[in-house]
Amino acid sequence: MHGLMMETPLLVTEILRHAVRSSPNQEVVTRLVEGGMHRYTFKEAGERIAQLAHALVALGVGEGDRVGVMGWNTHRQLELYYATAGIGAVCHTINPRLGPENAGYVMNHARDKVVFYDETFLPLVKGLAPHLATVESYIALSATGALPEIGDKPVHNYESLIEKHPTTYDWPEFDERTACGLCYTSGTTGRPKGVLYTHRSTVLHALVLAQPNVGAFDRGDALLPVVPMFHVNAWGVPYAALMMGVKLVMPGPGLDGESLYEIFESEQVAYALGVPTVWLNLLNYVDQNNLSFSSLKHTMVGGAALSERIIKGFERHGVRVRQGWGMTEMSPIGTTNVEEDDWSELPEEERVQIQLRQGKAVPFMQMRIVDDEGNCLPHDGESDGHLQVKSPWVLSAYYEYDGQTLTDDGWFDTGDVVVIHPDGRMQITDRAKDVIKSGGEWLSTIDIENAALSHPAVANAAVIGMPHPKWQERPLLIVEMAKGANAEPAEILEFTRQQLPKISWPDDVQTVETIPLGATGKVLKTELRKQFADFTLPTV
Amino acid sequence: MHGLMMETPLLVTEILRHAVRSSPNQEVVTRLVEGGMHRYTFKEAGERIAQLAHALVALGVGEGDRVGVMGWNTHRQLELYYATAGIGAVCHTINPRLGPENAGYVMNHARDKVVFYDETFLPLVKGLAPHLATVESYIALSATGALPEIGDKPVHNYESLIEKHPTTYDWPEFDERTACGLCYTSGTTGRPKGVLYTHRSTVLHALVLAQPNVGAFDRGDALLPVVPMFHVNAWGVPYAALMMGVKLVMPGPGLDGESLYEIFESEQVAYALGVPTVWLNLLNYVDQNNLSFSSLKHTMVGGAALSERIIKGFERHGVRVRQGWGMTEMSPIGTTNVEEDDWSELPEEERVQIQLRQGKAVPFMQMRIVDDEGNCLPHDGESDGHLQVKSPWVLSAYYEYDGQTLTDDGWFDTGDVVVIHPDGRMQITDRAKDVIKSGGEWLSTIDIENAALSHPAVANAAVIGMPHPKWQERPLLIVEMAKGANAEPAEILEFTRQQLPKISWPDDVQTVETIPLGATGKVLKTELRKQFADFTLPTV
Ligand SMILES: Nc1ncnc2c1ncn2[C@@H]1O[C@H](COP(=O)(O)OP(=O)(O)OP(=O)(O)O)[C@@H](O)[C@H]1O
Ligand SMILES: Nc1ncnc2c1ncn2[C@@H]1O[C@H](COP(=O)(O)OP(=O)(O)OP(=O)(O)O)[C@@H](O)[C@H]1O
Ligand SMILES: [Mg+2]
Ligand SMILES: [Mg+2]
Repeated sequence: MHGLMMETPLLVTEILRHAVRSSPNQEVVTRLVEGGMHRYTFKEAGERIAQLAHALVALGVGEGDRVGVMGWNTHRQLELYYATAGIGAVCHTINPRLGPENAGYVMNHARDKVVFYDETFLPLVKGLAPHLATVESYIALSATGALPEIGDKPVHNYESLIEKHPTTYDWPEFDERTACGLCYTSGTTGRPKGVLYTHRSTVLHALVLAQPNVGAFDRGDALLPVVPMFHVNAWGVPYAALMMGVKLVMPGPGLDGESLYEIFESEQVAYALGVPTVWLNLLNYVDQNNLSFSSLKHTMVGGAALSERIIKGFERHGVRVRQGWGMTEMSPIGTTNVEEDDWSELPEEERVQIQLRQGKAVPFMQMRIVDDEGNCLPHDGESDGHLQVKSPWVLSAYYEYDGQTLTDDGWFDTGDVVVIHPDGRMQITDRAKDVIKSGGEWLSTIDIENAALSHPAVANAAVIGMPHPKWQERPLLIVEMAKGANAEPAEILEFTRQQLPKISWPDDVQTVETIPLGATGKVLKTELRKQFADFTLPTV
Repeated sequence: MHGLMMETPLLVTEILRHAVRSSPNQEVVTRLVEGGMHRYTFKEAGERIAQLAHALVALGVGEGDRVGVMGWNTHRQLELYYATAGIGAVCHTINPRLGPENAGYVMNHARDKVVFYDETFLPLVKGLAPHLATVESYIALSATGALPEIGDKPVHNYESLIEKHPTTYDWPEFDERTACGLCYTSGTTGRPKGVLYTHRSTVLHALVLAQPNVGAFDRGDALLPVVPMFHVNAWGVPYAALMMGVKLVMPGPGLDGESLYEIFESEQVAYALGVPTVWLNLLNYVDQNNLSFSSLKHTMVGGAALSERIIKGFERHGVRVRQGWGMTEMSPIGTTNVEEDDWSELPEEERVQIQLRQGKAVPFMQMRIVDDEGNCLPHDGESDGHLQVKSPWVLSAYYEYDGQTLTDDGWFDTGDVVVIHPDGRMQITDRAKDVIKSGGEWLSTIDIENAALSHPAVANAAVIGMPHPKWQERPLLIVEMAKGANAEPAEILEFTRQQLPKISWPDDVQTVETIPLGATGKVLKTELRKQFADFTLPTV
């Protein structure tokens, strides 16, 4: 029997409406790409979003059209999120770090109709323009001087484009399954694949992010997403912040340690979110300059595995570190590693080991582990297998994709190999594509990498499986040495082995100048595999 | 264009699943109706809910069947919420305070198939049984001795009924618009009307209740709903608490000041929710006995207007008071009166006046004010009119009802007359049915009542409109004197008038032994109107 409740759709528009009526005077502060700071209120944001919506319509953007955006975290990108969604169009956020080939690929694949870009990315956009088949016009977000020529397409200035329009918009109501955003995966394991978010998935994700066990933003916190709006909607922060009425601080292009520290202090940021590499840089800067944080209380770390160095680095400054795990395909949040009441009683090393796990599934995120034959495995902290998920904010199919996205019974296979501990905490042991199959056993490359990374002379490390006639595959350790370090590779190998069970011992070690990183700062093992394609293990 | 995200439904079952996997050891503590305390973990709750689901199916309860429940806030009623919803049946919570006539009416109207009752209500159930057309069996929730006879229907003991069943259940997946709960309005203004909640509306309501600007339960808080589970799902607390993994303390039948104080202290309750009358009783008890709260930090007050006495009474003890406004028809939450950063700088009297407003709309709650002609009025704090709402957790139609529930353009008229201040805060001036129309002006009965209530000799006060040949209607003040007070009615009238503009002066005052209260503790003006039907104002 159906109940009798209104069918009012879950629309992103409602988040904006709520922000403006409930917290009209709350602030959005931006470090501008063109220099200086910008600040305005939610009420003013609402007015400019209405202006932008009119401008988009005037540009010919209609329902379902893709609006490409290649920009830093700024109030203007925030406006684009809400204005595109509000008129039923799709905000396609483009990761400029994908590199020209992949960036061009995703823009053509998405068939972007217009493209908004920050000045920083003009050279990239100019280079791509001749290859972009569908783009009808370009809009410079942070232009200061004369507008450039980009092929033979019209180029507009964002501010002049919107200023002439009315500051209210009669937002339409439509089906909550309408698309509102498009984001491609990082391309760590292959070509980026597109995920087409809906208003429903975006709203539900924001509601869950706002939970104390997930984001746990305090109402009084100033929030700073270091995590870029050009990838997976900055983990949903631009939605949750407006819904909750918290101050939003946008770092613009300044993501290095010094710039971040400066804005944390000047805006009294209490909560920040980002990937591990960003935090390592910040902590290095703070420690080298003998600084301390006067307002920072919480960080959320995700996108790649959290390390002990980051936990301890922040805790020295009294900052809590919470790990999250997610994927582009999951909007992105799947788990958060919530603190437990009894942590304060645990020995530090034990507690840190728990914090290094990826965390507990958030509400409405179903998870199961299956083996290669598709059997469900127990959550005993021992059985490892493929993590599969199901949730209203997990994709049902990649955008314009011929392959099969879900399992036959409707789950999404994350490509991550994990165990789930009896307390519900999930722990990634590897990516399925990276796992090394040695004589019937699966070896975790993450474990070997972590062992190598704990050597002070190692700047970065990656392990790949090499063919082996007897064992099928055996691990090869590849290291990038820290600047000025002069340890012998053999010493690193020995050091690494000492921390591991014999079966996981790398068969050999090789050094490289730099370990290649992808668009979201993750090691590109695909590149390393190419590089070492002709290499033969000495044990063969 | 539709996005490409999973259509996974929002089911109450997912809240339970999440609670058990994420917070298996969190506690539910109950003061038992049969005496003593009961405590168990979320994990054990999950097991008993599965047992109950099997038992319900064995009783013949199928999809869409209504399961009547007349009980106190206990772990058993919690089990009924989740087990009925989980199998696709409908939990019909019955307010025992409706009195025999209305209670019988709603049980027949709902066509309850089985009825669960707490021992306390056995006399009521026995008396009703001969008139209940559809009930096939009765289950005693807190039976201790031999089972009673109830007509010729089978009577079971809850514990023996469930104990034989397996502790797991293969919960089905179904449409999120499936009904999961049924609750009737309080009957303050007429016959109770039924509201049929869906899984979707219940889940979304819980997600919003969990927001910092709404419920603001801290993860570490022990939560106690004084607000009964037999009316509007105890404001959604049984769902939000399990979703958030917070300790739930169930007061059972002990809702008097002494019992509440005792359980607050013994279970270190940090957050409690209830209607104004409950808090007045508690504060009286605490102050008369010179006690203080050792753990209580927050209260949420709603269901009727919050008074200055309660705000100041709690603040003296360092307890924050937040007002909420809602309706059975709204699941119930519509607004909460969120604290502002600048409140600490305001003079106390000014701040209290703001706290007495009903609050800001929660996210995804749309609100408008319309006049008698249906024109939308500005939110200027001056224009008063009918408050209309729209949200995924507002009803679309009353259950089995012939009349029109929504406006022609799909909004629900709350029956409350309000202003909305420029800061977004809504303030109720009256119920539309109680408002007095005097010479083209609307007089707020709440204002007059509040003026009278501030006289120390007045225990309760109500104002009704009496016919008047010249003015159409004029106010009559009806007062119930405080025990032992010996003020003259004329003095009360004079005192009341002094605080009001002349147009609102009551034309006369009358005293009554007790002012009649309805099922949720609100003044039954319908009764008073009957009682004073033959009365003529001296000014006529
Ligand atoms: N906290 C974390 N710890 C370890 N790994 C993480 C964490 N968070 C995310 N990841 C990794 O990042 C992946 C998701 O990243 P993203 O969606 O940005 O693209 P990608 O998987 O790197 O790229 P592609 O799918 O194109 O190969 C997860 O599947 C997981 O492997
Ligand atoms: N904080 C509050 N301040 C003032 N009034 C409130 C508040 N919260 C709720 N109310 C009143 O309670 C009403 C909702 O109560 P409920 O749904 O329990 O039934 P009822 O309206 O009393 O009964 P019926 O609809 O059967 O006459 C609201 O419409 C409003 O008039
Ligand atoms: Mg991936
Ligand atoms: Mg009502």
